[in-house]
Amino acid sequence: LPSKLPDVGTSIFSVMSQLAAECGAINLAQGFPDYDPPQALTEALARHARTAGHHQYAPMPGLPRLREAISHKTAAVYGVPAPDPTTEITVTSGATEALYAVLAAVVRPGDEVLVLEPAYDLYGPAIRLQGGVPVYVPLRVPEFTPDWDLVQAALTPRTRLVMINTPHNPSGAVLTLQDLTTLAGLLADTDAFLLSDEVYEHMVFDGQQHASALQVPALAERSFVLSSFGKTYHATGWKVGYCIAPPLLTAEVRRVHQFVTFAVSTPAQHALADVLLEPEQYATLPAFYQHKRDLFGELMAGSRFELLPTPGSYFQLARYQSISSEGDVAFAQRLTRESGVAVIPVSAFYHDGLDHGLIRFCFAKRDDTLALAAERLSQI
Amino acid sequence: LPSKLPDVGTSIFSVMSQLAAECGAINLAQGFPDYDPPQALTEALARHARTAGHHQYAPMPGLPRLREAISHKTAAVYGVPAPDPTTEITVTSGATEALYAVLAAVVRPGDEVLVLEPAYDLYGPAIRLQGGVPVYVPLRVPEFTPDWDLVQAALTPRTRLVMINTPHNPSGAVLTLQDLTTLAGLLADTDAFLLSDEVYEHMVFDGQQHASALQVPALAERSFVLSSFGKTYHATGWKVGYCIAPPLLTAEVRRVHQFVTFAVSTPAQHALADVLLEPEQYATLPAFYQHKRDLFGELMAGSRFELLPTPGSYFQLARYQSISSEGDVAFAQRLTRESGVAVIPVSAFYHDGLDHGLIRFCFAKRDDTLALAAERLSQI
Ligand SMILES: CSCCC(=O)C(=O)O
Ligand SMILES: CSCCC(=O)C(=O)O
Repeated sequence: LPSKLPDVGTSIFSVMSQLAAECGAINLAQGFPDYDPPQALTEALARHARTAGHHQYAPMPGLPRLREAISHKTAAVYGVPAPDPTTEITVTSGATEALYAVLAAVVRPGDEVLVLEPAYDLYGPAIRLQGGVPVYVPLRVPEFTPDWDLVQAALTPRTRLVMINTPHNPSGAVLTLQDLTTLAGLLADTDAFLLSDEVYEHMVFDGQQHASALQVPALAERSFVLSSFGKTYHATGWKVGYCIAPPLLTAEVRRVHQFVTFAVSTPAQHALADVLLEPEQYATLPAFYQHKRDLFGELMAGSRFELLPTPGSYFQLARYQSISSEGDVAFAQRLTRESGVAVIPVSAFYHDGLDHGLIRFCFAKRDDTLALAAERLSQI
Repeated sequence: LPSKLPDVGTSIFSVMSQLAAECGAINLAQGFPDYDPPQALTEALARHARTAGHHQYAPMPGLPRLREAISHKTAAVYGVPAPDPTTEITVTSGATEALYAVLAAVVRPGDEVLVLEPAYDLYGPAIRLQGGVPVYVPLRVPEFTPDWDLVQAALTPRTRLVMINTPHNPSGAVLTLQDLTTLAGLLADTDAFLLSDEVYEHMVFDGQQHASALQVPALAERSFVLSSFGKTYHATGWKVGYCIAPPLLTAEVRRVHQFVTFAVSTPAQHALADVLLEPEQYATLPAFYQHKRDLFGELMAGSRFELLPTPGSYFQLARYQSISSEGDVAFAQRLTRESGVAVIPVSAFYHDGLDHGLIRFCFAKRDDTLALAAERLSQI
């Protein structure tokens, strides 16, 4: 069987998690919390597990009550008109499936898709699976903010889709409303759509607010906006995400979604619908993660790692040049094996493995986990 | 946004379920039970919902303990060497995602895929999404068994994949080991792979045994065999299925799976792993559904519908010519609206809407539901 993705290996997140398990290392590599969802949510799942009639197919676009809750919450948080649950919201098997469905719906062979690098490792292969051509535009280093002139220069009549991610994985950089307005201007004369990956929407720090593509009407009308309950509710293993898009775009996402997974876990959707209208979880998330970012920063202050600013997300980048001149992959593996802390080499987020000598820590970990990891890392 | 699937509407199953809901009709259309999973399974889900550490990403190929349980069960049921959980089993978001991942992994633009019609409505569009060309081979009517000469005649050097489904949706026909051996002979000189959709594997009646592609070595070595916990455990809404294939084929399925959904619900996988090694559920399933088939047959004996033989699955085909000369779509809609029983027109399983004057009932319903439906249907 000749591979359709011959040069694609196993995702770096699987590779490093497996290495971490083999070495008994603390896993600051793959992005997931080492604590559980709020009890209200786990109890809701237990309740729906025991509820008669909650075990068969959900409607293909998602449970109506969950879509309604998403609509209310979106309007309340972003001050935008409530997206129509019937025609504008699709519940997916994690944001991963949403991303895949958007690409499969939009990208035809030969279409160009603009990707700002570094970028989540599945963007490129998922584009190529559709026969699309990823066009990579580098973010400024070390701020990881877009140079909009470069974006403009990369737009061509074949650009079908632009992909942005804010807060940004792996850097934590956040786009401002001004950035989004600039982007709207660049796209005004094009036929390009926007995929805005906003799964870390509730992790923006220092009093700044997350700017959503939904808040800029000229963008919203051409945007697929993705989010993930896994990130917001410490439930990455539940695999429930969603896509908000105007009706004609949503119709195409659903056409693909119905063939890719058809529907998403019914008990999980019920449980999320039970808790979503209560704002506590997402309202307290910025402070919760800002504390972890700051704690990790303080704990690492005596180490030889140089931490970069982290305005959002649950990721922390670091330079290690004062410790080693190794490439980031070699360094990440050695750190996992010898120091018992697994991390992600940032070069995995570049299609060509561009190596800035940076590694990524995930700080979505209990305070004691962060302390133990920092202790190990400070001994180097 | 020009649609990539302009001629594909919403799946007939969604359409008829929605119409059933609007009309307050009994839903014998979409294939799902109106009873719940075994209590051991729902209690297991409730337990894992409350278990610390069971809420984050499962490993991409599936939870190891679930893959091990699948391996044991497969060997025990089919008398075949246990598939290697590490290299031959992938847990997917329902058999739907498995089907999609196989097609995305195997089919390149221009490749031909043999589909025996009538066929599950997503086969064709999912093939076309990959740029593949579905080549339709009709099953014999009314037995819905393959004419292997027609299959042989349809094989060309461009045939990349052959798709079979046993027990068969919508007809309930089952393939024999002899059928599979014949197919192995036809494929021997080709480069074609086999996708064997066996999601109704535990619904074969009258003392007959399900024949799996895994039991014919010459097929198994080129086969992707799909199954679904949703069907076997009355949990279609949990969306957990799997694919068994030789290591090199599994590697390609996983390459796609990691980009399409990445992983499957962790609590659901734990719950299924808890119950799968206990054979009771699947050992009793044939008798459970044979009872329902026979009951529905008896209840309908006084009606004007002519029921076809149903050797397997939870579907029952019926002719309605003594009632109406309408097309099957019109008749199915009228039955839903006027008689309060929703059914599926079999023409929805033909790419060209070929109409044999047949409708499909799903008999995975409580005995009282079947009685009420049969009462309504007998008044026509
Ligand atoms: C789907 S595993 C990857 C998790 C993640 O988002 C990350 O580590 O960047
Ligand atoms: C995914 S909804 C369709 C359920 C089913 O398998 C059928 O009704 O044939």
